[in-house]
Amino acid sequence: MVNKKKINAAIIIIGNEILSGRTQDTNTGTISLWLNSIGVVVEEVRVIPDIEKIIVETVNHLRKVYDYVFTTGGIGPTHDDITAQSISKAFNLEYEIHKEAFKILEAYYKIGEFNEGRQKMVWMPRNANLILNPTSGAPGFNVENVYCLPGVPSILKSMLGGLNNKIVGGKPILSNTISLRTVESEIAKPLSNVQDRYGDIEIGSYPFFQAGKLGVSIIIRSEEQRKIDKCREEILEFVIEKKIEVVDR
Amino acid sequence: MVNKKKINAAIIIIGNEILSGRTQDTNTGTISLWLNSIGVVVEEVRVIPDIEKIIVETVNHLRKVYDYVFTTGGIGPTHDDITAQSISKAFNLEYEIHKEAFKILEAYYKIGEFNEGRQKMVWMPRNANLILNPTSGAPGFNVENVYCLPGVPSILKSMLGGLNNKIVGGKPILSNTISLRTVESEIAKPLSNVQDRYGDIEIGSYPFFQAGKLGVSIIIRSEEQRKIDKCREEILEFVIEKKIEVVDR
Repeated sequence: MVNKKKINAAIIIIGNEILSGRTQDTNTGTISLWLNSIGVVVEEVRVIPDIEKIIVETVNHLRKVYDYVFTTGGIGPTHDDITAQSISKAFNLEYEIHKEAFKILEAYYKIGEFNEGRQKMVWMPRNANLILNPTSGAPGFNVENVYCLPGVPSILKSMLGGLNNKIVGGKPILSNTISLRTVESEIAKPLSNVQDRYGDIEIGSYPFFQAGKLGVSIIIRSEEQRKIDKCREEILEFVIEKKIEVVDR
Repeated sequence: MVNKKKINAAIIIIGNEILSGRTQDTNTGTISLWLNSIGVVVEEVRVIPDIEKIIVETVNHLRKVYDYVFTTGGIGPTHDDITAQSISKAFNLEYEIHKEAFKILEAYYKIGEFNEGRQKMVWMPRNANLILNPTSGAPGFNVENVYCLPGVPSILKSMLGGLNNKIVGGKPILSNTISLRTVESEIAKPLSNVQDRYGDIEIGSYPFFQAGKLGVSIIIRSEEQRKIDKCREEILEFVIEKKIEVVDR
């Protein structure tokens, strides 16, 4: 159950390499966990190809539906990096050299190394706000509520800290996990009863295999620790009653 | 560049646990690689929450746009498993006990173990076609071009083999990777020139870090090995000319 009053976000993963299955996306998890910690709920993720028309349409749709949109990928120097030009189109802005970004990269590289390929990375939508990159120089940027980050996971990670002051979230979303040595069908009924009594809390049930044994993790999510504790208590009540083992995970 | 004549597919990952960042999705990669091998291109992935209205809308949109749609997650026995009822709504079909599925699970479980929770897993859209589950009994299903699979990666994987005869693809999509000890900006220009000469081939460039060193993988994708070989040759020409090291990866 996603609460409509929460500050929400969508993530757009741009890249054929994710769609083809060659590369495993990990940026969704990184961005989601960070957003949770500052009180923003990710409500949708889309993985789309490196095609300008599709990027433009997806960005223009999602930026109207969600408070924030994050894109990853496509801001490097090669021919398949078309995020900046696509965002320019989406917002109907000039795609041009960003002076501040130019200065940053000019200072970052040794003399003679700021070549044509690298200079492509300072082309951005007019008046874009820069997102600084402590790892490899080339900045990301945002236009209004659309934040464009690189695809390389370690670089993306290093840039999120700089966004903490830009993204205004709500209360952090807290969670608690109870892992049980059981199967879902064993707890489906009483768990459903607890969910019915706590309409504003998200209770998820996730089967797992660990060391050859089956188990179920129950995740309770809410902004209010008090409610989580209350809900956890009720779950543990039927767990004890059913003599189900609680396990670490 | 995605070729419009290809048989295409979309994947819908249903699950709050992926959106929250708690669970890392790996099913996208599994399904994409398998589809590639039977000549189907994945052109879009969406991750959406366990909310019926959103599942119905997403399925009804994507099943008209793509040749095939695959969903993962939400077909277990707990309250947050609502995929089957949502697909019923999407196709305007009765949500009811599937007799064949009932027989399968009745035979699968020991006497007395086919309890109420487990019986939820045989509720499906009327006349759904079953997708057999060699791992844990409970089948997936398809209605028209929408194929519903479980979220647990090992179970999902074990069910794909049974679909090889149901999914009609085109020529398998072949690929070749050249990994280089260089940075993208060094090869951006000549690589772009090669792409210009091979409009119908997908050439991607992906930076990586390995053992503390930077590198770039170039991926060439096409249905025709001959074209891949030709393209690879031209890339290696400028690689040699620029004295860039080719590395294993």
